[in-house]
Amino acid sequence: MTTHFQRVGPIRQVVIVGGTHGNELVGVYLVKAFEQAPEAIQRTSFRSRTLLANPEAVAKGRRYVEQDLNRCFRLEDLNRPPTTYEARQAKLIYQTLKLDAELPVDLLLDLHSTTANMGLTLILASQHPFNLRLAAHLTSLNPLIKIYCWPQSLNSPFLRSLCALGCAIEVGPVAQGVLDAALFQQAQTLVMQILNYVEAFNQGQTPATPNHVTLYQAVEIVDYPRDQQGGLQAMIHPQLQNQDYQPLHPNQPMFITFSGQTIPYAGHSVVYPVFINEAAYYEKHIAMCLTQKCTVPLESVELS
Amino acid sequence: MTTHFQRVGPIRQVVIVGGTHGNELVGVYLVKAFEQAPEAIQRTSFRSRTLLANPEAVAKGRRYVEQDLNRCFRLEDLNRPPTTYEARQAKLIYQTLKLDAELPVDLLLDLHSTTANMGLTLILASQHPFNLRLAAHLTSLNPLIKIYCWPQSLNSPFLRSLCALGCAIEVGPVAQGVLDAALFQQAQTLVMQILNYVEAFNQGQTPATPNHVTLYQAVEIVDYPRDQQGGLQAMIHPQLQNQDYQPLHPNQPMFITFSGQTIPYAGHSVVYPVFINEAAYYEKHIAMCLTQKCTVPLESVELS
Repeated sequence: MTTHFQRVGPIRQVVIVGGTHGNELVGVYLVKAFEQAPEAIQRTSFRSRTLLANPEAVAKGRRYVEQDLNRCFRLEDLNRPPTTYEARQAKLIYQTLKLDAELPVDLLLDLHSTTANMGLTLILASQHPFNLRLAAHLTSLNPLIKIYCWPQSLNSPFLRSLCALGCAIEVGPVAQGVLDAALFQQAQTLVMQILNYVEAFNQGQTPATPNHVTLYQAVEIVDYPRDQQGGLQAMIHPQLQNQDYQPLHPNQPMFITFSGQTIPYAGHSVVYPVFINEAAYYEKHIAMCLTQKCTVPLESVELS
Repeated sequence: MTTHFQRVGPIRQVVIVGGTHGNELVGVYLVKAFEQAPEAIQRTSFRSRTLLANPEAVAKGRRYVEQDLNRCFRLEDLNRPPTTYEARQAKLIYQTLKLDAELPVDLLLDLHSTTANMGLTLILASQHPFNLRLAAHLTSLNPLIKIYCWPQSLNSPFLRSLCALGCAIEVGPVAQGVLDAALFQQAQTLVMQILNYVEAFNQGQTPATPNHVTLYQAVEIVDYPRDQQGGLQAMIHPQLQNQDYQPLHPNQPMFITFSGQTIPYAGHSVVYPVFINEAAYYEKHIAMCLTQKCTVPLESVELS
């Protein structure tokens, strides 16, 4: 069979990124912990390195200094003279990982957290068969892991798109600026499971995976109801708060106004909202992302 | 009997403050909602007004611009030429509410939110008998309400200390920058209950209250374990996370290091931690506040 992707040879190097957003502390402190005890992320068949992506934002305890670093990785932006701290940082990361690297980075993990109740979520860098099999393997180890997919683009602004292999990892709910130990440990375990899978893959011993994987495919972005000046007119309805990945049926409550009026979901089919009430998305005009739940068969997926 | 406090005559004006911290959205949007529907907060025997305390920080979606506004209300600071945006703002608020006011403000409510699991918490402006009776009344209406007390000071830096009567209201857990509808509605109900109590008090019809009130008195501030550069060495232990107002016994887990070692509570008596893992307190070197649970009798409390 053919795929849109190259066959995968052995993975030579993995990079684990934290602090792409400076106030998402689980990733920041996981990277720091890996730097203090690097043996945890080393395996025999590949190298692992770590990267704190936005050190200025980490120092300030803010998502970003001038602009969202995780929207700075479009090729045309990387090839243009940078005008912000984050644009410079994106260029530096791109050069370090892709252009100037002595050893190519084949797989990238970008560690994030969210104020939404998304548990452990993988956002695949691409729907490369390797990523789908990895996702199927991880969900077989921990059925609570969810796989969220954003429409593929050849020119994505996200850091995770620097490699076709790998994913962003979202853990939540946790407030910005807060280090949650349980989520820290769950994310740590997940990174170990991914590294172990890569090791097994390199050694030709990829574990048997289920013959399908469940994906939550983004189909629509929903903003808050707003007035003409852009001010909020309503909040996430209490019945929808924390219901990430749960089915939302037509006419079920979606928002509630400040005077207590319910605004129902006006769609015509069941959807599965995620990123419900993510703090960083108010300014992006995103109240939630609606997804469809898809079961993707893996039997015809071929790896080298 | 005598108290340290003046007898209370009728309350002439109440001020409801939101946005003292710009990223605590429940208070910001409650004040906006009251401004859009002012009849909700009017009563026959007193005036109510609202105040958005830190509009610049609200616009930026940050706790503060230059310094924490809620630490700018010491008298010596208010009487000194202001050097920051928040110092100027504090002076303006002080003048507006206390000095230049046509009608004195007798009672102040300052609406906050916290990332800690503190439910509905009142932080009394003082232990004035009026406040204690109000607290007893509110906890009789809703036993989930907790009363947290910070040591009284004649020269407090907090906005709530502009009036002897009233309190700060903390609702949580909610992430900074997030509007939680359930907490919004609970805080709204609480404000209504307070205004109704004031109205009844003014009319000489103060409802009968329990003859005691339970207070959580701050006794110790605990910082995170840190290295010599001030970096975190441990996180709140998962068994302590979200356990605000629950008893913590000697030797029970308090922190956990990044390598998984538990650090127990080293004290010798049971305490009740609050503000556990509050995002804004990392920079203040506060991992939690330890309190003692006290039952204060009210029978000897005298009001005019």
